[in-house]
Amino acid sequence: MTALSHIRIVLVGTTHPGNIGAVARAMHNMALTRLYLVQPKFFPHEDATARAAGADQVLRDAVVCDSLPAAIADCTLVVGASARVRSIELPPLDPHACAGQILAHAGNGEAALVFGPEHSGLSNAQLDLCQQRVCIPSNPEFASLNLAAAVQVLAYEIYRQAGAVPVALEPPNPPATRDEVERLFVHLEQTLNALDFLLPNNPQRSMRRLRALVNRAAPDQNEIQILRGILSATGRAIAAADAKSDP
Amino acid sequence: MTALSHIRIVLVGTTHPGNIGAVARAMHNMALTRLYLVQPKFFPHEDATARAAGADQVLRDAVVCDSLPAAIADCTLVVGASARVRSIELPPLDPHACAGQILAHAGNGEAALVFGPEHSGLSNAQLDLCQQRVCIPSNPEFASLNLAAAVQVLAYEIYRQAGAVPVALEPPNPPATRDEVERLFVHLEQTLNALDFLLPNNPQRSMRRLRALVNRAAPDQNEIQILRGILSATGRAIAAADAKSDP
Repeated sequence: MTALSHIRIVLVGTTHPGNIGAVARAMHNMALTRLYLVQPKFFPHEDATARAAGADQVLRDAVVCDSLPAAIADCTLVVGASARVRSIELPPLDPHACAGQILAHAGNGEAALVFGPEHSGLSNAQLDLCQQRVCIPSNPEFASLNLAAAVQVLAYEIYRQAGAVPVALEPPNPPATRDEVERLFVHLEQTLNALDFLLPNNPQRSMRRLRALVNRAAPDQNEIQILRGILSATGRAIAAADAKSDP
Repeated sequence: MTALSHIRIVLVGTTHPGNIGAVARAMHNMALTRLYLVQPKFFPHEDATARAAGADQVLRDAVVCDSLPAAIADCTLVVGASARVRSIELPPLDPHACAGQILAHAGNGEAALVFGPEHSGLSNAQLDLCQQRVCIPSNPEFASLNLAAAVQVLAYEIYRQAGAVPVALEPPNPPATRDEVERLFVHLEQTLNALDFLLPNNPQRSMRRLRALVNRAAPDQNEIQILRGILSATGRAIAAADAKSDP
């Protein structure tokens, strides 16, 4: 079950320290050990320790980060938990499919499961940093699970399936890290600006669609290099045109 | 979903009222409404109401009983949750099988899922009142789930199997046809040739990788339009450069 040691739970902006402790307990129950906390309101805190109910090691080993990008920089698969519906992407994964994808990745790289603040969930900008979204099926009239309950359901699915995971196949190329993918997006946005392609009044609209598309494709490092090579060649063509038009 | 209204959650001897509230929330999240409390230490209680987080109706409708037999008298299937191993019975159900059996019964009669006190679980005498036992797979070194977390996992399996998964969203744009995708590839190859990007001795190598990447992403029609828009803008930049360099 070494795959479990390559899976991290990332909690963003958690308000109630008791929930952090309850998450640590839920994780330890399901043999997950790696907890990342992005700007927790209170941590460490006695309520976290009390609700951990013995899962103290998970709290002691927790990594506190300043930002979500920092918490997932070395990950090759990032799944965001969300109850909200966004129209620009594929339907979200259900917990069963989510656990399968995370376990398949966790052999070759680091996988992250990201949860937003209790009252608001992950923002659109935070979800844009995730390649996939997972949604726990729930009562449409009362859809919002407690944070630790949501972690418990997803960790349960991961633990259950970890018992039966075939050895992950070595991919032909290493998967791209989130940092590499983000640098691709920066390069892409620069190039589209140079092409006057982005809408001046809403440049993020096309970028958000392109991000969702690239994230769905889950490019490997070699593919990122090809895409950045195309962007560099495009940049040279634009520069040549500009040089000729401004003698 | 009428089967769900024939399923009750029975909590025996609960010590912490906050857990009763958290159970009510977990139930309501999964469209379960019928909570039975056997000799709760404190109920009603402000901690229960606080942790219910809006699932007040489940608490208001909760039935308080003097004994476990009273709470399950009219049930035709009673399943006890237990982390302990008893040698005198069949292996326990896992949550998935448990949910299946409960749903199969709940059409014809009343089904109960019974949970013991936080620190001790159900006694042997109480388990003897159950026809089946369910055990949530967990870390052997830290097996004991929080009461509400255990209810959440089992309620999730019931809700999921009840067919209550929310209807998957219609994707906002129609998926691209193969013809549209192939025309994108033709346009892409023309553009990459104009950029002198493809290897002269093996132009298909990069194209094959890019095809695989795009196919993995499964673009919709709108996304194809965006990508072709970028290629057209790139083509104009190349033409501008060429025009200036060949007067």
